[in-house]
This record gives sequence, C-alpha cells and structure tokens, in this order.
Amino acid sequence: MKNLEELFHHLLKDMYYAEKQIVKALPKMAKAAGSAELKQAFEHHLEETKGQVERLEKVFKLIDKTPRGEKCPAILGLVEEGEEVIKKGEDDDTIVARLLAGAQAVEHYEMSRYGTMIAWAEQLGIRDAVPLLKETLKEEKAADAKLNDLAMASINRQAA
Amino acid sequence: MKNLEELFHHLLKDMYYAEKQIVKALPKMAKAAGSAELKQAFEHHLEETKGQVERLEKVFKLIDKTPRGEKCPAILGLVEEGEEVIKKGEDDDTIVARLLAGAQAVEHYEMSRYGTMIAWAEQLGIRDAVPLLKETLKEEKAADAKLNDLAMASINRQAA
Repeated sequence: MKNLEELFHHLLKDMYYAEKQIVKALPKMAKAAGSAELKQAFEHHLEETKGQVERLEKVFKLIDKTPRGEKCPAILGLVEEGEEVIKKGEDDDTIVARLLAGAQAVEHYEMSRYGTMIAWAEQLGIRDAVPLLKETLKEEKAADAKLNDLAMASINRQAA
Repeated sequence: MKNLEELFHHLLKDMYYAEKQIVKALPKMAKAAGSAELKQAFEHHLEETKGQVERLEKVFKLIDKTPRGEKCPAILGLVEEGEEVIKKGEDDDTIVARLLAGAQAVEHYEMSRYGTMIAWAEQLGIRDAVPLLKETLKEEKAADAKLNDLAMASINRQAA
C-alpha cells in the first residue's frame, strides 16, 4: 500500500465487496419492510446496486485488474446494524424507522467512498472511470433522497 | 427494542460509543498526518468531538437515562480502516489521502446518524434535544467541508 494507485485499487476492492454485501442484504431488508413503498424502494435499489457492481467491474478492467472484493469492516458493521432490526420483535413503524435509518447510513457511507474514488481517479488520470463512478454516485444520492422522503412521510403519517 | 423511544435511546448509546472511539482515534490520526494543516484539522476536530460527547450527555439527561455507550460495529469498522493507514509503510501524500478519505467516511456516517436522531427527537417531542443535535450536525458538516478543501488542495499541490 505504497501509493495512490494502490490505494485506489484497495478502495475499489472494498467497494466491490461492499456492493456485493448490499446485494445480499437488500432482499432481507425488503422482506422485513412493513410498508409497500419501502419494500419497493429497496427492490428498486437492489436492481441499481447490481448495475453498480457491473460498473465497478468495468473500472477493474480499466486498471487491468481482476474484479475481486476485499473484506471491508465498515460495511460489515453497517449491514450488521441493519440486520439487527430483523432479528428483534418490533412494531411495524419502528421497523420502518430503523430500516430507513440503516439504509441512509449505508448510502452516506457510499457517497463518501464514491466521492473519494472520483477524486483519486481524476488525480490518477483514469479518465474513463470518472463517468462510471459519477453515475453511481448520482444513484446513491437519489436513493438517499428517496429514503429521506419516505422517512418524512412516515413521520407525518404517524403524527396525523 | 419495541418502539421509537427505545430506538432513539439505542442510537444515542451507539453515537455516544462512536464519539468516544473518535476521541481515541483522532490523536493517532493527528500524529500520523504528514501535513501540518491536516494535523491541525484533526486536533481542532478532537476538541469539537469532546464537546459533542458532552452534548450527548445532555440528551441522555433529557430522557432520564444514564450516559452509557453501546458497541457500534459500524464505527469500529470505520475507525479500524482509518488505523490501517498508520500500520503500513506509505509515502506522505498517500497517508494524507487515506486519512482524509477515512475521516470523510466517518463524518458522512455521523451526518446520517445525527440527521436521523434529529428527526426522531422531533417526532418524539424531545424538543430540547433538537438544538443540541443540530449544533453537532453543523459541526460535522463543517468538518467534512474542511476535509474536502484539504483533499482538493493536496491534489492540486501534487498536480503542480
């Protein structure tokens, strides 16, 4: 881990691992979601996430590396927190509140990681990687905004 | 973990644990930082973080609970990734790039958590908690913006 090129490769492997963990977690979260809207949001984001995995595979190709994940403790912790929800007995509104909060924490983590990768790809001159990573960052931001809307709607519904 | 009140208490304990981990990690990160500016940013954020711990203690008091942390796997993972930097032999620019990226991932995680806590405090009518949590959220956003400026300055310096 001596230079920025290796650092970029390392982060790419981290995110490849992370997206694959998310692909595994989202169906469980969709199943646990009490509301149809939230279930649909998770299912939609699952499809997006599969596309994000493919984009990362293209970035691996651009730097002549085989797509391979590397265990990323942060995302494991985030997913673990998300899955805690599902184990314990909670009422529906609380499950929705916690799933939303957990998913937003994941989205924020990913936004920060993709922001860093874009900056490093630009610095390293891996130009074709930039639009791929920006496309994913755009999707993550939109997913977070959607979750925010759902959280606000859920709060307003309960207050009514 | 049956309702939103318990969920709020749980997240409060998570963040109390998280902020205390960050108080421990920041001096190590400041020591590892090659640049004087980054070192100063970490030291400044250490002082802020101590204030954030005190604000959380006030929130515990508002809900009649004793301040107590709960092990939060996500923040442990994030801090672990940050500390990886320090163990391996890297050149100065790379250390700075990784420390900045790690710190930004932590800030983003915290921004999402404080955003959630503010929404829940409002929903639960814990009104006096809202300005305390908003003050911390403002500091986290400013810390992230500062780290972003440092990252851009570092990239531009290396490109020059």
